Amino acid sequence: MSLLLSDQLFTDDTLWQSYCSHRQVVIVTNKTIAQYYLKPLQQLLSRITDVSTIIISDGERYKTLQTFDQIITELLKQNIHRNALMIALGGGVIGDIVGFVAATYQRGVDFIQVPTTLLAMVDASIGGKTAINHALGKNMIGAFYPPQAIMTDPSVLDTLPERQFNVGLAEVMKTALVADAAFFEWLLDHTQAIMDHASMCLRELIQRCADIKSNIVAQDAQDHGIRQTLNYGHTFAHAIEQVQGYGRLLHGEAVSIGMCLALQLSMKRGMISQETYQAIKHWLLQFGLPTQLPSDFTVAHLLPLMQRDKKNQNQQIRIVLLTQIGKAKTCDYTPDELIAELC
Amino acid sequence: MSLLLSDQLFTDDTLWQSYCSHRQVVIVTNKTIAQYYLKPLQQLLSRITDVSTIIISDGERYKTLQTFDQIITELLKQNIHRNALMIALGGGVIGDIVGFVAATYQRGVDFIQVPTTLLAMVDASIGGKTAINHALGKNMIGAFYPPQAIMTDPSVLDTLPERQFNVGLAEVMKTALVADAAFFEWLLDHTQAIMDHASMCLRELIQRCADIKSNIVAQDAQDHGIRQTLNYGHTFAHAIEQVQGYGRLLHGEAVSIGMCLALQLSMKRGMISQETYQAIKHWLLQFGLPTQLPSDFTVAHLLPLMQRDKKNQNQQIRIVLLTQIGKAKTCDYTPDELIAELC
Repeated sequence: MSLLLSDQLFTDDTLWQSYCSHRQVVIVTNKTIAQYYLKPLQQLLSRITDVSTIIISDGERYKTLQTFDQIITELLKQNIHRNALMIALGGGVIGDIVGFVAATYQRGVDFIQVPTTLLAMVDASIGGKTAINHALGKNMIGAFYPPQAIMTDPSVLDTLPERQFNVGLAEVMKTALVADAAFFEWLLDHTQAIMDHASMCLRELIQRCADIKSNIVAQDAQDHGIRQTLNYGHTFAHAIEQVQGYGRLLHGEAVSIGMCLALQLSMKRGMISQETYQAIKHWLLQFGLPTQLPSDFTVAHLLPLMQRDKKNQNQQIRIVLLTQIGKAKTCDYTPDELIAELC
Repeated sequence: MSLLLSDQLFTDDTLWQSYCSHRQVVIVTNKTIAQYYLKPLQQLLSRITDVSTIIISDGERYKTLQTFDQIITELLKQNIHRNALMIALGGGVIGDIVGFVAATYQRGVDFIQVPTTLLAMVDASIGGKTAINHALGKNMIGAFYPPQAIMTDPSVLDTLPERQFNVGLAEVMKTALVADAAFFEWLLDHTQAIMDHASMCLRELIQRCADIKSNIVAQDAQDHGIRQTLNYGHTFAHAIEQVQGYGRLLHGEAVSIGMCLALQLSMKRGMISQETYQAIKHWLLQFGLPTQLPSDFTVAHLLPLMQRDKKNQNQQIRIVLLTQIGKAKTCDYTPDELIAELC
């Protein structure tokens, strides 16, 4: 698996040559992304090989078995063979569902991630996790199936709505918190440059996140140990998204709230100071990210859903806990303990 | 992955201890098998750990995305965690669909194959292929996902209907034809003992098939080379099953016809003698297996479906061809060539 960071992705076909020549290529994207980037990519790749396209609806609520079936059906109708290459052009939802299709269509075809959101660039596209949601839980159906390559063009962030950009920053902060204290300081120091979308700054930010995550995944691809720390805030976040119904809060917004709840647990244990907690909250708020639960529900509403999390064992709730900035561990709580420490 | 052959499988819980202790165990089976073997296995394993069960409908036509969804939903409702063990108790259909659920539930849980048909014992349970069907093609959705163990009790064949037993023999003959001339001779020499279901003979037959297939799979797990020879007769068979609608002919019956068609191609090229072809046909017919296409359609009806086979590249049809007994290779035909050689 290789990571390519280039602002020539939609203009320089030589970047694609080695992956695409002499095989069928299928670009899968959503209606929103298609407006901006489908035609350029399609035209570029058509110089190399036969290219077909599949366009699905935009949004987490379409990351379902139904959409999965829709893509598979389209692949079969188009007579796509198992030596074909799929390209996931889009954000985390596209990467997850197309990756899962690639993992399972004819028992596995090659695919490339072309992340078009900050969240996908810094987090979702890296590490080989693919998945779709089930009514009873997020990402409950999936596979570990790394792409042949991740090809990222930071200039596509220019067309990303501000709210979508900001939710990516929640995952950026998460990455720093669990794994890299120096990167955490860098983030606080570069708040203004990030707000300005300064291109050198964004490039460094993407590269650092990718390096940190790749390094962790290399140690634990199957998510049984250290990789679980990358789920910091996510046990809360997944439950929040389910209680809300997917779509009202974006994933990164739920992660932002989840991190703040998890930080409170670390504060209670004296691992994180009140000042650090406030600095993180302040940083998140500057980017319009929520830092507390919506007023219409409490932690108690989340617990039954949290018990269904993939990381759990023996009915306890596994939480990732920050022991200091840049270091995290997993910790099992009973529902009662969580209520006591958070209410 | 280990293969255990024992006639104590439903009575000796020590055989299960190392796989089942300290984790949730879920047995998935169908209504037919459940009548015979679910209760004994459930009672046995209940001595070791918590056991739950999921029962699906019996038959290839239920090897669908809908049944997949049904099993996943049940796992989530039962709050099954990703450190659980699934047990596929049944024939090839159960093994395929439960294997695919195991491959994808929460991105993968452990599973054990307990094959209850001859076909599953000698072929389907070995080699890590899992899959479900799609309306546009058999086994089009799946994964390579080997079980932790295959646990086979030949005594369960006593309750297997004769037709179901015989279809397993089509895969046995296939295994001999593509990989082991001595085993082919052994099969011709042991026709009567096989008909009598002589237990020592069946045990040897199962073990030899498992060894041959495991050896081939070890060389080519992902099915890009030598493993494709195990699909001998199957390019025809899959198309036959689709034209017929799943269920009218059993899979092994379609394979039996497919092998005979493929043998004709070898005869045309002088690789197999008329006598050998007749001997194989005779052997298959003795076990009630069909050796020619149903009267209501011809090879021409199969071609459009054969072009969709997973092994194909560049619109040609990839056929496994016997070059001599015990040796096979893949060979690409155009539809016209196939028509010319078979009509």
